[in-house]
Formats: sequence, C-alpha cells, structure tokens
Amino acid sequence: MKPIILTGDRPTGPLHLGHFVGSLQNRVALQTSHSQFIIIADAQALTDNYENPKQIRENVQQVMLDYLAAGLDPDLNVFFVQSQVPELYELTCYFLNLVTVARLERNPTVKDEIRQKNMKDSVPAGFFCYPVSQAADILAFQTDLVPVGEDQHPMIEQTNEIARRFNFLYKSTVLKEVKAMTGTTGRLPGIDGKTKMSKSLGNSISLSESSDEIKHKVRLMYTDPNHIKVDDPGTVEGNVVFTFLDAFDQQKDEVENLKEHYRKGGLGDGVLKNRLANVLEELIAPMRSKRQEYEKDPAFIAELLKKGNERARDVAATTLSQVKRSMGLLY
Amino acid sequence: MKPIILTGDRPTGPLHLGHFVGSLQNRVALQTSHSQFIIIADAQALTDNYENPKQIRENVQQVMLDYLAAGLDPDLNVFFVQSQVPELYELTCYFLNLVTVARLERNPTVKDEIRQKNMKDSVPAGFFCYPVSQAADILAFQTDLVPVGEDQHPMIEQTNEIARRFNFLYKSTVLKEVKAMTGTTGRLPGIDGKTKMSKSLGNSISLSESSDEIKHKVRLMYTDPNHIKVDDPGTVEGNVVFTFLDAFDQQKDEVENLKEHYRKGGLGDGVLKNRLANVLEELIAPMRSKRQEYEKDPAFIAELLKKGNERARDVAATTLSQVKRSMGLLY
Repeated sequence: MKPIILTGDRPTGPLHLGHFVGSLQNRVALQTSHSQFIIIADAQALTDNYENPKQIRENVQQVMLDYLAAGLDPDLNVFFVQSQVPELYELTCYFLNLVTVARLERNPTVKDEIRQKNMKDSVPAGFFCYPVSQAADILAFQTDLVPVGEDQHPMIEQTNEIARRFNFLYKSTVLKEVKAMTGTTGRLPGIDGKTKMSKSLGNSISLSESSDEIKHKVRLMYTDPNHIKVDDPGTVEGNVVFTFLDAFDQQKDEVENLKEHYRKGGLGDGVLKNRLANVLEELIAPMRSKRQEYEKDPAFIAELLKKGNERARDVAATTLSQVKRSMGLLY
Repeated sequence: MKPIILTGDRPTGPLHLGHFVGSLQNRVALQTSHSQFIIIADAQALTDNYENPKQIRENVQQVMLDYLAAGLDPDLNVFFVQSQVPELYELTCYFLNLVTVARLERNPTVKDEIRQKNMKDSVPAGFFCYPVSQAADILAFQTDLVPVGEDQHPMIEQTNEIARRFNFLYKSTVLKEVKAMTGTTGRLPGIDGKTKMSKSLGNSISLSESSDEIKHKVRLMYTDPNHIKVDDPGTVEGNVVFTFLDAFDQQKDEVENLKEHYRKGGLGDGVLKNRLANVLEELIAPMRSKRQEYEKDPAFIAELLKKGNERARDVAATTLSQVKRSMGLLY
C-alpha cells in the first residue's frame, strides 16, 4: 500500500508561485508514489474569513482549477472540500475535549497569526480551535505523512498529541501518529522581497496570471537598490530576481554566469527581468491553457469534487466509527 | 402551531428529585400544549467526562427510562441523543467563528463551573466552547422557549447573540431568537441542605431509589441542629425536611400546622421524617413500577430513541441547510 499523504490549501485566493514552489510541484512529483488526499480547507478558511463565505466558496472552484493546471492528475489524487465531509466536524468536537485551552493558547503558529492579523481581543473561537480541526483532518485519513514547512511543525505536534492521548485514554490503536515530510516544501519571497509571497500582501504572482501581468510584476521586483547604473557592481543575495531565477530557470549554469557578471557590474536589471519574465511565462503558459480547457467543462470539476468528497467521506466515516467504538459511543 | 421548547439533560447519572422539581414535572405539564424536543446531551456531558464515555453511554439509557417513569409521554415528545444528530456538530463549528475567545472567557456559568470543578489550567477546549454547542442545539430546532433557572440566563444570552450576529452578518432570518421560560423551574436542596441536589455531591434521592433507600436518605436529612430534644422549639427555615414537605406533600394545610407545632416545640424530627418518607414513596413508587415495565422492553426504548433521533436530524438538517444557504456555502 502506498503511504498516505494529507495536504491541501485554504481557498482564500488563487494559488501563486509561492504555492507552486512550496508544495504544488512536490505534490506532482509524489502523486504516483503516494496516495494523496488533497483538502480544500474551506471550513478552516472561514474561521478568520467568516465575513466573506461567498468569496471562500468561489475560491474553492479556483483552487481546484489551479491544482489541475499545475499538473495534479485527477485520476491519481483525491480532491475534496472540507465542509463537505461532516465527519470532520464530529471528530473535531470529540478531539476538542482532549486539548486544553492553555495548550491552544501556547500554539506558536496561532499566536503568530493572531499578532499578524491584529486580532487582539476579537479572536474567533473557531480560529483559536483550528489546530484541533486540522488534527481531525489529518487523523481522519489515517495519514502517514504531512508535507510541512518549518513553521508548521506545531501542527504535527498537536496532531500527534491528540492521537496519543486518544489512544491512551480509550485503550485504542485507531489513531495513527503522523510524520512531518520535510524538505518537500520551499519558500518563495514576494516580489517586494520582504516576506513570503502572499496574495493578501499584494506581492504575489498567481498561477493564472496573464503574460502582461507577469511582465508587469517582474518589472516591479525588488533587486539591489544600490545598483543604480548598469556599470555598478550589484548584489545577488536578497535580490528577488535572482531568487526567482534560482527557483525557476532550468539553465543553472547560465544563471551562475549571470550572477558573476552582475556582481562585477555591467549587467542591467532590465536584461535579467526580461529573462525571468520569459522563464515564468514558459512555466505559466501551459498552466494557463490547461486551466482554460478545464474552465470550459465545469461539470467535470463538479463531478471530480463530488467523487472526491464521497471518497473522503467513506474514509473519514470509517475512522469516525472506529473512534466512536473506542469510546464506547455506539448506539 | 404549538410553541417549540428545547429542554434536556446531561446523562451523567440517574435523574433525581431535584430534576423532578426543577424541570421534569413542568415538562409533563407542558407536553400537550407545547412541542417539546428533549435532548439527552451526551456530547456536552463528554466535554468534562471525556475520560468515562462508556458511563455516559449507559446513562443515556437510564435517563430515557427516568423520563418515561416520570410521566413524559413517548407520543407527545421528541426524545433524542445529541451525538446522534451530527448536524449539531456542524452548526457548532460554524457558530464558533461568530463568538470570540474573550466572550467565552466571560461566560459566568462556565467560569463558575471551572472554579467548582477545580479545572484551573486544564480546562478542556470542548468544555470551554460548550455554550456554543448549546446554542447550536437550541437554534437547530427553531426553538421558541427554553425553560431555565436563573443561573442559566447566560446560555440564553449567548444563544441570542449568535442568532443576531448570524442573521446580521449573512443578511438572513433563518435563526430565531429564543425566550427564557422562567418560573417553570424550581430548585431543590440536597439532603445535606448545603447546595442544590446533585448526584456528584452525594446528596441526592434518585427517581429510581428503593423504598429502603428513600427511608435511609430521609433519615440522614439535615433539619435544625439546635432542635435536640423533642420539646425544644425548632426552626423551619433551611430545615430540609420542611423544604421537601413544601415541595412534595399535597396536604398543604397539614404541613402548615406541622410547621407551627415544630416552631413551638413538642414535634420530633422522626415523626416528620416518617411522613416525608411516605410522601416520597407515594411519588416514586409509581415511577419505579413504570420504570420496571419499560426496562422489560429495551427494544421499545431503542426504537423510541431511533425515531426521535431521525426526527431531530430532519429538523436540524433543514436549519443547517438554510444556514449554509445564507452563507452561500452550497455545493
């Protein structure tokens, strides 16, 4: 049996190059050797977007198109929408009893997000509890591996704490501890070079961007602010154009030569940016046309998600019934 | 259409005289004029009894027997088990986004319980969030009235806050604000006279008590500690035997005469306690035999709960689908 991976995204906007580098390209690479459950986490997205549920709803569709455009194979992966698997809500409610409020307060990821989003005294209880809902997602599918970045390790810890506590308390073996799959995620800065790429920060290049938009955004990219004249020596480190060339340009040798040239002076940003725009266009153009094909066939997408939701419900219902049996809660 | 009442109990033990005075006798009185949904709140009981789910499971059966023994008519009321209506979990998760952590921290009932149960830093998140789950129970059934004691007003407030917030945020009218039904609940002290009757405090007389147990517990009842000799004048106020006679003895005039005699002196506790034991035996004996009848027919109980759960799911599913439609979350 192939190892099971649970992975996914919050449908808060179109997926971008950060998602591609960070996870999509790895999912594509893993889709034959692993059994992947890909969750579109709309319920989790609602915990801090509860004011705009319709937008979340629309993005579910868009994210699904992004997945297919990026090369995820509809026959190899199970795509499903979190809110359509009510078993996950039920598991969440049982698991909430096994985690203390103090433990949730200590979750570093949630703490960071509360600060970043400036939530202060208005933290929605659903948002506060989302690590437990995430644990339910992971544990429901008897997951072996979760691809995570370093900042997501607390999620794995919380999940395994719940699994251990459940199994101990109810003398059960139903919940399987999960392993973080590191090294499978990368991180891409935004075009401003400041932080990681994020749609809400307005520094992203989405996977559905037009050619013109790509060119425009590459032109806006942060380079070396001291590289004023072409002849000036330039800095490669922290120069977003080079970071992107490293990530996307297949001609590694040429990129190394360009770096050397840039450092010496005599290489203008414009030349580099044209090159990057072409590289990105080459990456995105086939996604764009694949996306257009799928957009013409909404029934296919609907059917794909319906099938995925059914499959996910089957698996989650099996775990849920084992969970309830372990607790002696059978009626 | 009859007004809808939601009421129920946490299945943490057999129901006792406190439940009878506090709510059961009112439910019996209201069962023809109102449409009553009676929830056996096992999921809520688990939030602070998660270590003993099997005990909760067994008490569901016992509580159902207590209901029927106390005179609740299986044809007039909808009896259901909270955990068997998964729509309630789903509503709970959506409503959790509409309540802040700070708001839950301020809930006076939960604060009191945390103190009483000495939970300190180990408050289970599920327990912390239970007012939201309670609100989901109430709102799911388009409830008009909830019979509450004074200490439960915060529950009604929290429920109506969620209803208003939901309706405002999603421009909806689907959730109906609920009214507290006061004056329908009384409060009975435990046999020690210290606090309200509670099984966990060991001061209760259950509805399934034997004659001998009733006599024994009445003998243990707190009276007037200064009423040492029969001739001593005695105090009626705070004297649990008189509180119980007031609650259960139909011969109100005789009870008034006994109070006068007791105050003057010359009336012994033993006489009063014998009278009370007889009064209680008269109340409980028919319940006991009704209970024995139903115990012989577990299939009837199972079928009754199955039918109730189905009816409850129908109603809750309708509310849930309207909730999701209001949020634009239809797939």
